[in-house]
Amino acid sequence: MSLIQVINPNTSQAMTETIGRAARAVAAPGTEILAVSPSQGVPSIEGHFDEAIAAVGVLEQVRRGREQGASGHVIACFGDPGLLAAREIASGPVIGIAEAAMHTATLVATRFSIVTTLPRTLIIARHLLQQYGFTHHCAALHAIDLPVLALEDGSGLAQEKVRERCIQAKREDGSGAIVLGCGGMATLAQELTQELGLPVIDGVSAAVKMVESLIALGFGTSKHGDLAYPLQKTLTGAFQHLN
Amino acid sequence: MSLIQVINPNTSQAMTETIGRAARAVAAPGTEILAVSPSQGVPSIEGHFDEAIAAVGVLEQVRRGREQGASGHVIACFGDPGLLAAREIASGPVIGIAEAAMHTATLVATRFSIVTTLPRTLIIARHLLQQYGFTHHCAALHAIDLPVLALEDGSGLAQEKVRERCIQAKREDGSGAIVLGCGGMATLAQELTQELGLPVIDGVSAAVKMVESLIALGFGTSKHGDLAYPLQKTLTGAFQHLN
Amino acid sequence: MSLIQVINPNTSQAMTETIGRAARAVAAPGTEILAVSPSQGVPSIEGHFDEAIAAVGVLEQVRRGREQGASGHVIACFGDPGLLAAREIASGPVIGIAEAAMHTATLVATRFSIVTTLPRTLIIARHLLQQYGFTHHCAALHAIDLPVLALEDGSGLAQEKVRERCIQAKREDGSGAIVLGCGGMATLAQELTQELGLPVIDGVSAAVKMVESLIALGFGTSKHGDLAYPLQKTLTGAFQHLN
Amino acid sequence: MSLIQVINPNTSQAMTETIGRAARAVAAPGTEILAVSPSQGVPSIEGHFDEAIAAVGVLEQVRRGREQGASGHVIACFGDPGLLAAREIASGPVIGIAEAAMHTATLVATRFSIVTTLPRTLIIARHLLQQYGFTHHCAALHAIDLPVLALEDGSGLAQEKVRERCIQAKREDGSGAIVLGCGGMATLAQELTQELGLPVIDGVSAAVKMVESLIALGFGTSKHGDLAYPLQKTLTGAFQHLN
Amino acid sequence: MSLIQVINPNTSQAMTETIGRAARAVAAPGTEILAVSPSQGVPSIEGHFDEAIAAVGVLEQVRRGREQGASGHVIACFGDPGLLAAREIASGPVIGIAEAAMHTATLVATRFSIVTTLPRTLIIARHLLQQYGFTHHCAALHAIDLPVLALEDGSGLAQEKVRERCIQAKREDGSGAIVLGCGGMATLAQELTQELGLPVIDGVSAAVKMVESLIALGFGTSKHGDLAYPLQKTLTGAFQHLN
Amino acid sequence: MSLIQVINPNTSQAMTETIGRAARAVAAPGTEILAVSPSQGVPSIEGHFDEAIAAVGVLEQVRRGREQGASGHVIACFGDPGLLAAREIASGPVIGIAEAAMHTATLVATRFSIVTTLPRTLIIARHLLQQYGFTHHCAALHAIDLPVLALEDGSGLAQEKVRERCIQAKREDGSGAIVLGCGGMATLAQELTQELGLPVIDGVSAAVKMVESLIALGFGTSKHGDLAYPLQKTLTGAFQHLN
Repeated sequence: MSLIQVINPNTSQAMTETIGRAARAVAAPGTEILAVSPSQGVPSIEGHFDEAIAAVGVLEQVRRGREQGASGHVIACFGDPGLLAAREIASGPVIGIAEAAMHTATLVATRFSIVTTLPRTLIIARHLLQQYGFTHHCAALHAIDLPVLALEDGSGLAQEKVRERCIQAKREDGSGAIVLGCGGMATLAQELTQELGLPVIDGVSAAVKMVESLIALGFGTSKHGDLAYPLQKTLTGAFQHLN
Repeated sequence: MSLIQVINPNTSQAMTETIGRAARAVAAPGTEILAVSPSQGVPSIEGHFDEAIAAVGVLEQVRRGREQGASGHVIACFGDPGLLAAREIASGPVIGIAEAAMHTATLVATRFSIVTTLPRTLIIARHLLQQYGFTHHCAALHAIDLPVLALEDGSGLAQEKVRERCIQAKREDGSGAIVLGCGGMATLAQELTQELGLPVIDGVSAAVKMVESLIALGFGTSKHGDLAYPLQKTLTGAFQHLN
Repeated sequence: MSLIQVINPNTSQAMTETIGRAARAVAAPGTEILAVSPSQGVPSIEGHFDEAIAAVGVLEQVRRGREQGASGHVIACFGDPGLLAAREIASGPVIGIAEAAMHTATLVATRFSIVTTLPRTLIIARHLLQQYGFTHHCAALHAIDLPVLALEDGSGLAQEKVRERCIQAKREDGSGAIVLGCGGMATLAQELTQELGLPVIDGVSAAVKMVESLIALGFGTSKHGDLAYPLQKTLTGAFQHLN
Repeated sequence: MSLIQVINPNTSQAMTETIGRAARAVAAPGTEILAVSPSQGVPSIEGHFDEAIAAVGVLEQVRRGREQGASGHVIACFGDPGLLAAREIASGPVIGIAEAAMHTATLVATRFSIVTTLPRTLIIARHLLQQYGFTHHCAALHAIDLPVLALEDGSGLAQEKVRERCIQAKREDGSGAIVLGCGGMATLAQELTQELGLPVIDGVSAAVKMVESLIALGFGTSKHGDLAYPLQKTLTGAFQHLN
Repeated sequence: MSLIQVINPNTSQAMTETIGRAARAVAAPGTEILAVSPSQGVPSIEGHFDEAIAAVGVLEQVRRGREQGASGHVIACFGDPGLLAAREIASGPVIGIAEAAMHTATLVATRFSIVTTLPRTLIIARHLLQQYGFTHHCAALHAIDLPVLALEDGSGLAQEKVRERCIQAKREDGSGAIVLGCGGMATLAQELTQELGLPVIDGVSAAVKMVESLIALGFGTSKHGDLAYPLQKTLTGAFQHLN
Repeated sequence: MSLIQVINPNTSQAMTETIGRAARAVAAPGTEILAVSPSQGVPSIEGHFDEAIAAVGVLEQVRRGREQGASGHVIACFGDPGLLAAREIASGPVIGIAEAAMHTATLVATRFSIVTTLPRTLIIARHLLQQYGFTHHCAALHAIDLPVLALEDGSGLAQEKVRERCIQAKREDGSGAIVLGCGGMATLAQELTQELGLPVIDGVSAAVKMVESLIALGFGTSKHGDLAYPLQKTLTGAFQHLN
């Protein structure tokens, strides 16, 4: 039995539930999913400022997850906020959903497209593509130009825009797969995969399988080298609980 | 229950068994491993010529695997021979072990080293790093300067050389993980991971988990775009059986 | 007197003749062209699977070419199938036509466009651009969306589509040269160069001149390092004749 | 008269003073330097975890700096923690000292070396080189293998190690300039420049001049596009003061 | 008091004055601007040939500037002709305006667009982006398709075309800043910055501030390594005055 | 009968003869070699300043060569000074010897080493590798640390140093070919190729064959796009003869 902690880095409870559902839908029999979000932070993440705040929440949750016996962690925001920092404090694997979705896309197609929320988040995806090595594997990036929380407003409008952009991406980009660029889109992937006839990849489910796989292989985050535990030092003020 | 076909692209039966053992060691309860090798081809793969021959054997086996109900395929040679060709004829996922090990390494460390067999195979690893996007994630490549089949001669010499090179890589490269660059090294990974205290990654086991994950996610190889099934055409001569 | 073997990697006799004609049209006085194709394989090459099959045919022919006294070899399919493998078994130079055309384009223009057959082959061109170092020298890739053998159906339709795309590429891409992305387009280059007023480059003729040049310079494929002859090993089954 | 806020992202008061001194030493007559550090956070920054914590402190200070009338901001830690986030909330320019030092080095030399503190921070420098576009301009990275605060222990040992590494870098790397990879090394630059006879670049002073220059040119951070002010949302808990 | 020499590499007196004005508008109180142009050469620079001629004029002027006591030098043509050569003969800093504008753009925005004169100069900008490391920071390049001297014909037509292209770039490129790709556009930057509401960057003024900054930091061009003074040798003919 | 102009960009008559000999040794029966050097300029080229001066001499010679009926041009200095400028004014092909040698090396080996003269010229080779796309094809760069003209001093010392470095490069770099990084080394290539048993490539002879090949293929420099003839403008002073 292994416990995988799926961290929604924002404080939106509805999104935490969306993400948890997506994670549980693919979890192996022996996996328990613990879907959490920080008690404090930002309600949605749409830029670098939001990410910087959310990263601290991610770290708090990883720490708590370890105390609760989590074997691995998923950071369920498409910017992978705090990923390398979380790896330093984790012993098990930590996977970001952008990372998971991008890696997965390169395994089933030669090139992929990304469909995300606001245009201002595109730069975050571009930077991740470069850091992960996939700049040349991404054929195009698209933004539906709606905020993240539009995915939780119950109207279905954002979902329909995502669908339209995926159809357009399939027709125009010459890509073999589409990556959904927001944790809040997690539950759309399966249906769109069916409708469009190509892999539409949600990072939450992909990340859960990656964490399960790493655990099964006996790998946690490497503690040799630059992802070793942080050096012991005294955090002060609002960060004391991270000591 | 899903059947994963693990293809040793060379004709060495001993290596097929090594690879099969490594695959079974990590397979999930619901996974059956079918370890196979081509009936004809080369006894070991140590260069581009060997790879070109082996690729045809891989394709024959993928085709046979599909007939036998395999849900996914692993190409268990570190050069990933025939990978994109195999993806064209497969409906399920196809994963190469170099690909699997390199992807895995980037998930647990910021940079990795590779330890492989003969120096002449280094260029193959370099080309794959570039194609997969991981050139900047690889800190160093090492060759033990022994042929592939030395790993099957029973003397343990090659295994000891691998171990020494891994120790050297840990000390000198500043890497957080080591990738074993040959399917024949598959069974060394676990022990070296223990001894060295960092992830020493075998691509066979990593690839099995990737195939399982993709199947669980509902993804096969994308049939939209450039990995669609090959256009119908009549193969002649020794290739007729691939029609 | 030197004999240059021009290998059409597919089994289409009509295309072998097209290619042979293009080769002879530029061959130096002292050069004899031997245009060949594999006795078995695929009738046209439009993807990775076709390429993998064709590569074996290329290797058989290179081997035969050496026995017939060929001083150098051209691989006359735009994906350069089996190029590095062929270099391992050849002593003389081996040049692929994609390679030849791309190199040539960078010598007469700062950036070039590619016009090829089916969209599914674009990824092969992209990978070659990356491998050869010319990603940033290629301004755009175009596909006429007709199969390779349409170039041999006598209707002239494919030829007209190639011409239209070249005109479009000249107008829109800001390129100084156009590379024709298929051996079957070889005989179009001269006329299009005249009509369009910029270099329209066929790889077959370019490759012949490269092989001639390397021979004149006294260079074969380097046998020091990773292109040395394959290690001696016993090929089995349908590959026995390659021993 | 313009006020430039120089933010030491860690809580070490001694280092804030070192940094403030370096900033004032180069400030133009019309520039006032406000050297600050977060009231809470980490005493030194030597990894991704430390950076994530420090980034929040940087954001708090940038916000405070704006209230105090600062025209621009310097982030005085070599990892440039929170740089893009800070740019979102700032109207004036925000410059990181790694960024400043690297840019400066490319203006006075064709390639440069970096000398930093602990080996585990090298990956941060590597990532910044890639993000800023300078991977190919950096000839080598060196770590003195002492923690950041060793620079403030009064023994001079760390300073001597920095000096030795700079001498070694000059002799071995073929670089024309050396970048000091820690805010705590700021006051060493001038002396080492004299002794070594090549530019030894401290990012604090370089960043101050960059901020001054941008202000003089009339440029703040672009508010068009992805560095626009963060979308209005309600931060909760320990982050409320950032609302 | 420091003297900064601003070199217009072409012989157009009107453009020298435009450039001088732009330089003086941002010069610090203690800076004197000496705007010069070669006594012989080309009246405008719109290609590699023009640049090669202009580079010699730049070198003559840098030499003269040193004799006149200049502390630093600006090369005020967007191709930065003769930049590295000028650095070899200078002791102070030498900054090209393309370099200055591109660096500046990356400090205030994540990606930028370029608006230049003739399409044939775009390749020069592309090569500089690659050499400086900013290929991935440039979202798009635009040419107004008018020659350089149209900026000096008094009609205002070229200026209006620049403005239109900047507006288009803002709307379509997703860039946060625009770089003006010609010294003759220097005086447009401030007004366009106001009108468009994003940084429109002129390299002349940016370069002046960079030279001032480097001087204030105590840095000239590194004389250690490959930018050391040219080896003593006897220039002949029209180049004797450069001895 | 075609006339190929081989331009030694420096004014050393001895080197012009060395280069002319190397060119004639490989010229086809129908090729006449015209080895020239500028009447004025620098006696050797060992840096960017020397290159900038030499580029003007190259342009003068290309112009003269066209008047003398040259069908193509070789720029016989390893920095390829004035290459793109020369292409603008030429109608036939123009090939630099660095370009020629690097392209050739990639056709006979997967990676190559460079052996050149002074360390300060290494940066020029690095920049060319990047511009031509071959950064990843070059395994190592070596400098013998002797000036260019040491190759013409009759002592044979420089030649012996070149030989030693080639032997070292063969042993240590894992390269399959070596590129000689100076026109003055042209006549060493054949002997070293014999002695070392791998291709040691001189750019002069390689460039002659490339020019011959391009002429045979009917290609000159593309006059469509950015290598079109320079715009008509009046050059003044010492450059009047280039009008």
